[in-house]
Amino acid sequence: MAAVFLLLLSFLLPTAARYTPDWVSLDGRPLPSWYDEAKVGIFVHWGVFSVPGFGSEWFWWHWQGQQPPDPNYVSYMTKNYPPGLSYSEFAPHFHAQFFNPEEWADIFRASGAKYVVLTAKHHEGFTNWRSPYSWNWNSVDTGPYRDLVGDLGEAVRNRSLHYGLYNSLYEWFNPLYLDDKKNGFKTQQFVIQKLLPELYNMVVRYRPEVIWSDGDWEAPDSYWNSTQFLAWLYNDSPVKDTVVTNDRWGAGCACKHGGYYNCEDKYSPGQLPKHKWEKCTSVDTLSWGYRRNMKLKELMDLPDIIDDLVRTVALGGNYLLNVGPTADGTIPPVFEERLRGVGAWLETNGEAIFATKPWRVQMENSTVSVWYTSKGATVYAIITARPPTTTLKLLIPKTSAATKVTLLGRPSPLPWAPVYPNAGLTVLLPDLPSTPGQAWTIKLDGVQ
Amino acid sequence: MAAVFLLLLSFLLPTAARYTPDWVSLDGRPLPSWYDEAKVGIFVHWGVFSVPGFGSEWFWWHWQGQQPPDPNYVSYMTKNYPPGLSYSEFAPHFHAQFFNPEEWADIFRASGAKYVVLTAKHHEGFTNWRSPYSWNWNSVDTGPYRDLVGDLGEAVRNRSLHYGLYNSLYEWFNPLYLDDKKNGFKTQQFVIQKLLPELYNMVVRYRPEVIWSDGDWEAPDSYWNSTQFLAWLYNDSPVKDTVVTNDRWGAGCACKHGGYYNCEDKYSPGQLPKHKWEKCTSVDTLSWGYRRNMKLKELMDLPDIIDDLVRTVALGGNYLLNVGPTADGTIPPVFEERLRGVGAWLETNGEAIFATKPWRVQMENSTVSVWYTSKGATVYAIITARPPTTTLKLLIPKTSAATKVTLLGRPSPLPWAPVYPNAGLTVLLPDLPSTPGQAWTIKLDGVQ
Amino acid sequence: MAAVFLLLLSFLLPTAARYTPDWVSLDGRPLPSWYDEAKVGIFVHWGVFSVPGFGSEWFWWHWQGQQPPDPNYVSYMTKNYPPGLSYSEFAPHFHAQFFNPEEWADIFRASGAKYVVLTAKHHEGFTNWRSPYSWNWNSVDTGPYRDLVGDLGEAVRNRSLHYGLYNSLYEWFNPLYLDDKKNGFKTQQFVIQKLLPELYNMVVRYRPEVIWSDGDWEAPDSYWNSTQFLAWLYNDSPVKDTVVTNDRWGAGCACKHGGYYNCEDKYSPGQLPKHKWEKCTSVDTLSWGYRRNMKLKELMDLPDIIDDLVRTVALGGNYLLNVGPTADGTIPPVFEERLRGVGAWLETNGEAIFATKPWRVQMENSTVSVWYTSKGATVYAIITARPPTTTLKLLIPKTSAATKVTLLGRPSPLPWAPVYPNAGLTVLLPDLPSTPGQAWTIKLDGVQ
Amino acid sequence: MAAVFLLLLSFLLPTAARYTPDWVSLDGRPLPSWYDEAKVGIFVHWGVFSVPGFGSEWFWWHWQGQQPPDPNYVSYMTKNYPPGLSYSEFAPHFHAQFFNPEEWADIFRASGAKYVVLTAKHHEGFTNWRSPYSWNWNSVDTGPYRDLVGDLGEAVRNRSLHYGLYNSLYEWFNPLYLDDKKNGFKTQQFVIQKLLPELYNMVVRYRPEVIWSDGDWEAPDSYWNSTQFLAWLYNDSPVKDTVVTNDRWGAGCACKHGGYYNCEDKYSPGQLPKHKWEKCTSVDTLSWGYRRNMKLKELMDLPDIIDDLVRTVALGGNYLLNVGPTADGTIPPVFEERLRGVGAWLETNGEAIFATKPWRVQMENSTVSVWYTSKGATVYAIITARPPTTTLKLLIPKTSAATKVTLLGRPSPLPWAPVYPNAGLTVLLPDLPSTPGQAWTIKLDGVQ
Repeated sequence: MAAVFLLLLSFLLPTAARYTPDWVSLDGRPLPSWYDEAKVGIFVHWGVFSVPGFGSEWFWWHWQGQQPPDPNYVSYMTKNYPPGLSYSEFAPHFHAQFFNPEEWADIFRASGAKYVVLTAKHHEGFTNWRSPYSWNWNSVDTGPYRDLVGDLGEAVRNRSLHYGLYNSLYEWFNPLYLDDKKNGFKTQQFVIQKLLPELYNMVVRYRPEVIWSDGDWEAPDSYWNSTQFLAWLYNDSPVKDTVVTNDRWGAGCACKHGGYYNCEDKYSPGQLPKHKWEKCTSVDTLSWGYRRNMKLKELMDLPDIIDDLVRTVALGGNYLLNVGPTADGTIPPVFEERLRGVGAWLETNGEAIFATKPWRVQMENSTVSVWYTSKGATVYAIITARPPTTTLKLLIPKTSAATKVTLLGRPSPLPWAPVYPNAGLTVLLPDLPSTPGQAWTIKLDGVQ
Repeated sequence: MAAVFLLLLSFLLPTAARYTPDWVSLDGRPLPSWYDEAKVGIFVHWGVFSVPGFGSEWFWWHWQGQQPPDPNYVSYMTKNYPPGLSYSEFAPHFHAQFFNPEEWADIFRASGAKYVVLTAKHHEGFTNWRSPYSWNWNSVDTGPYRDLVGDLGEAVRNRSLHYGLYNSLYEWFNPLYLDDKKNGFKTQQFVIQKLLPELYNMVVRYRPEVIWSDGDWEAPDSYWNSTQFLAWLYNDSPVKDTVVTNDRWGAGCACKHGGYYNCEDKYSPGQLPKHKWEKCTSVDTLSWGYRRNMKLKELMDLPDIIDDLVRTVALGGNYLLNVGPTADGTIPPVFEERLRGVGAWLETNGEAIFATKPWRVQMENSTVSVWYTSKGATVYAIITARPPTTTLKLLIPKTSAATKVTLLGRPSPLPWAPVYPNAGLTVLLPDLPSTPGQAWTIKLDGVQ
Repeated sequence: MAAVFLLLLSFLLPTAARYTPDWVSLDGRPLPSWYDEAKVGIFVHWGVFSVPGFGSEWFWWHWQGQQPPDPNYVSYMTKNYPPGLSYSEFAPHFHAQFFNPEEWADIFRASGAKYVVLTAKHHEGFTNWRSPYSWNWNSVDTGPYRDLVGDLGEAVRNRSLHYGLYNSLYEWFNPLYLDDKKNGFKTQQFVIQKLLPELYNMVVRYRPEVIWSDGDWEAPDSYWNSTQFLAWLYNDSPVKDTVVTNDRWGAGCACKHGGYYNCEDKYSPGQLPKHKWEKCTSVDTLSWGYRRNMKLKELMDLPDIIDDLVRTVALGGNYLLNVGPTADGTIPPVFEERLRGVGAWLETNGEAIFATKPWRVQMENSTVSVWYTSKGATVYAIITARPPTTTLKLLIPKTSAATKVTLLGRPSPLPWAPVYPNAGLTVLLPDLPSTPGQAWTIKLDGVQ
Repeated sequence: MAAVFLLLLSFLLPTAARYTPDWVSLDGRPLPSWYDEAKVGIFVHWGVFSVPGFGSEWFWWHWQGQQPPDPNYVSYMTKNYPPGLSYSEFAPHFHAQFFNPEEWADIFRASGAKYVVLTAKHHEGFTNWRSPYSWNWNSVDTGPYRDLVGDLGEAVRNRSLHYGLYNSLYEWFNPLYLDDKKNGFKTQQFVIQKLLPELYNMVVRYRPEVIWSDGDWEAPDSYWNSTQFLAWLYNDSPVKDTVVTNDRWGAGCACKHGGYYNCEDKYSPGQLPKHKWEKCTSVDTLSWGYRRNMKLKELMDLPDIIDDLVRTVALGGNYLLNVGPTADGTIPPVFEERLRGVGAWLETNGEAIFATKPWRVQMENSTVSVWYTSKGATVYAIITARPPTTTLKLLIPKTSAATKVTLLGRPSPLPWAPVYPNAGLTVLLPDLPSTPGQAWTIKLDGVQ
């Protein structure tokens, strides 16, 4: 095993400070700086679940895993498929015949995002690359007959975007995992024979800059050997200097250990957290994977997305927005529209997002939503709805004579007046340009 | 056959004026009034072609009909399907498992359209109802196992929309048709054994209020027995009082005979035509049927659609906007978004569209597009792009002291001033409300 | 229509005696002599029913036609196929990828048979050639993509075998037929639009020497236009001089009108009938079409077949032995074994079968079965089981001093002695050679 | 793992003589006696290869493994399947819907065989039971959804037949195996992670009495850990007292180490070997797995089989006769016929086969084949073709006055006369009964 060889090799190399396989040490690692600057990423859920395209990417679980099974799924299968068909029979229909990684990467780039995270392996266990530990259950041996992880990665990196991989620790129906589970996780057959060799292989082969770990919650990190893996990842892996990970490394780890925190799916804090975090969310509010029957009202519209993104960044988070491609290998046009809409908005307003820091206050008390970000001495007030009047009152910034107010996307400065001496300002808004995102940025220089 | 019976019966009934089977008589029939008032319809292309969902609804023809075949289609089939697979093998995959006619009809109603036209049978010959003349090649014997024509019709009519059916006269690969064609259309085997019995059956069974005829161009109307059919349709059919048809009834008929004129697909006249016409066009600019790999830039966006619709109505046409549902039975969300967007715009501006008549002039000479419609004494000037300044100059209307100007959707009247005495007016525009359609209507009362 | 043209043409040609379309005239036609001489034929049931290969070639009827449906079929479909799958979806799986007409014809020839009858169209309506009246429901438009009727015919005829076609008059689920049926067969839509044009087309195109008609029983011959068709067939068709037909031309015709009589399937008369007849039977005792799950005990073994064949010929009949090929296009080896076994037996004993006539008595009163046939002055006594002793007593032949007795396949004559003066003989049997057919022929010259 | 636990446990138990993991020790183990007495077994090749059913069970290898691939296989796939289809996509079509283990076991029992060996896993790696080490690539997770190994085993054992399992050591396309191979078999990833855990699991779960090992030849036994496995099998496994194995445990082992010897497939020695051996052969001479297009002439007929069986037993071997069931789960009738034919012959002649020993001479010098077997003082001379005359001369047996000669299946003794004083005998044969096997047994008592 190449990975094993690297492990051994690493003990022979002179290294300065090394992380030890415990949370105290691992949690002390600073997050590589690219990540906080990136702010916006695209999440891509793609797998065999895209074939039934029904319910969500948890299709298999709802159909055959949970007890009792979800009657909607059972009934859908009964009505539309032969009796006794197994989930694995969907794999040959994962054709991906239209998959053009260049086109996908163009869309991701056009969205303004700085990183892309693909599901290398979801809970179904199907790997989107030729894992030697997942014979006949990967995208090269069946279905697409293609290295999806590798092909997308190359296109994404050619556009200077960072590339991350989602990996599920557990696999719902893997018999080795189920056996360990039955043994109260006192055996580690699954971890030793399947999970870890595969994970090392994936990291060495694809050098992901994000490892978006998931599926950890049923067992403690000691079962998953998470701290050993992370110590290797941070000390000796080929991505040791740039990789970031999240916080899903075992029951109880979320919001507590690891790299940045996801806490729960779609989690948003109420106020500025102390630890770097990321909000992952999905254009389709009901699923991360593609659903054949999604309806418009179940999708986030562009103003919703922009508002959510702005709020997340103002509160110090990164925003990871998900789309679910089809089994044919296309990104549904309605998702493409959303992503290009985000990009159009960031074209003008990205200055208030990328590489910013939360300001001393995150939100204005106002009838209309106003969120603050900052970069150096500059403060940005982002309004995420069209104000009802032509003036906007901002109470938090402290102004001075040198204070300068502009609207991003408009060259000339805006007239303003202090509300109180040195505190607060009333800005006279111009005709706000029409923008599908319904959000505008007031740039404040010379305020505190 | 019931139809034959009705034919016979009709000779026994006392009827006043009857149409004779010739164009002079048939062209003299006045168009039932509902049609001109309706203005906006939805066109739905759905069939076996929705299964490959590649290229366009002409898939079969490009793949196997034209000589030489289109290499893109041949290559797509070669790469993705077993050798020698026949087009008919797509039919079982026309599942329509999510087809909910109530949901479709809700979307069509929400679009503001007043009529819906479904492909009952396209050039492939597959009927979306159980035609007894198309055994094993219809939507009840295979695929959906469902009367699509009937089910959609009921839902559409329950929402007070008019229901029309598209019917292709020719069938690319029907051996009887091909035989007639080889005989220089001197035999009518196809017409007598297949086309006409089926068409009578369809009319009697579903009572369509539009018969959108197509596929006529290879043979003269005398081959199709078109005038005999239309005479029956207008004299004796169950929809004789309400049905409208178009102009595709034989080579040379388009733009010349029949009911309203379509002329060519997507045809728009340069100036006001003398005969009622309809522009049919498609949200997907490359296809009428669903394409799995459509991309955003190939679709009309909402402002394009609204502009096209307004121009069409101003020039006296109806606007029939097409969407292609999937073989699963869903309307792709991006199409739903367009339709609901049209509906949102019509909610405010429909007064300037429905039941209007072309005005004495159709278009203002202006830097920004302004189209006129009228209803009684009221004139509507519809601007289909945001004007660059806050005033709008309209030179054609003749004003008086009684002239009143309003913006649809805004209660209070707008200030205006004459450009010349009694000729032209300059309107002071308010902040134009944000509308995804990017079009606004100035209502002018008391002008000429 | 070529056929129509021929019909018309025929009235212009000078013809001697012509058959009129009534049974008196038609029944008077002498059977072309080749048929009675042929004695043995092979029947081939092949169609879409070969795909499910379950139950019998009546699969569709048992599954969805009869009321209530047969629960075995319903349950088999429920267990093994998606809900709502239609019978027509089996057609694409009728691959026939191994179909080699030369190999088939070699086997048929090796069986000793003189004619072959293929199901050109069974009750399912699927035609094994490109019938223009059965678009998308024939073997060239889907499944095999091949002219099965034509390809087999050529190979069969190249081996000097006669070629016949089975044709079902009715089609269980043809909507035109069902409509006529609902009308008490007072309408003839199905006959005029489908059945007759197709039948003329088939005859003109493939020139079958047997038309094995079936599926007649639900309607009178007047519905089927049978007498008109037969008059054309006998007077003007390209096979008028050689064609034979059977007796299934309308309710009440069987055993009464037509060419030779089949009466019922597998019918055997108890004594010598006055009219030429044919016994059709099947190696698989439970089905004519291929069954995937046939078991050895359900098949006729070779001695059963030879016994049945001998008895049939002794009683003046022809023997039409059926095999059901697979949807893959192969003849299962167990059927091949039976056919080659028949051929091996006929190699030695064919002299007592082909071109023989029934003798004045058909069967010997004996403990072991002995059947008589004759050819000129020669009489054949065929024993269809190994006699328990080494002498065989035949009571019926009248002997003289010139009487000579031999065993077919053995040069030297057998010793014999009269039972009574000039009546009956006791033959001293040699060691009977081992033959899988378990039947031997005693040839008697100079008996009466 | 239960197997691991048993391993540990075994060290704690008092055991007398234990085998050590080396060939000297293992080869010294006496073969459990049931095996030599059984003489006749049925071999069953069943797996995913039964689905294409083309060429042989080596389909996958010929198609995609060997370099260059066999053009027959490549062309068959190109003509009949979509481009890029993977072998794994055949698995869902392994329906086994008619698989009735009771019926199969009835046939096996009727064949007279005393043991049955099923392919638990062939070179394709697909396991016919739910191996936890072969997730999604076994008969319970896909295809039959059934424990084929367990279900057949139960039925076989209920008929007092011994049950054995075939297991391939190598798996053509297993990426772990291919990796080890690339490393010159210096790594054992495949053996440690896949092969051995699975094999222990199989033995513990199904307790096979034969382990028919195969696929060993590319690597030495040290790679496969064969001696360790066999030591466990003989010392500690649940079948340690009854199990037999063959000789395919690593390159160079065949005909040299292990239990009985197979040497090569279909191998027959020219004279009596010193070591117990088994001839495995197949009714279909071209394949072990089912072939859709097998023809009669490619199959062994019953006399061939009986001759081969007799010769094998006379030379001290066991005879393992193979049939390949269909993917539908049926045994083709032609195979059933062969097996029942063997059984019918053994019904009469089994006394000369079962529990016999080779005699001092194996074969008579004669124009007709005569093979000897013996049981106690009785000698059997088996003639495998019908003798040309009514006397049979046997030169080898030494007779005495007490010598008694009978034909198995016939009560009264046969007349005989010595050829020389006390040496050789001429037997006067009766009318040999007709037997499809074309072989008869002369039982000699009181000879030497």
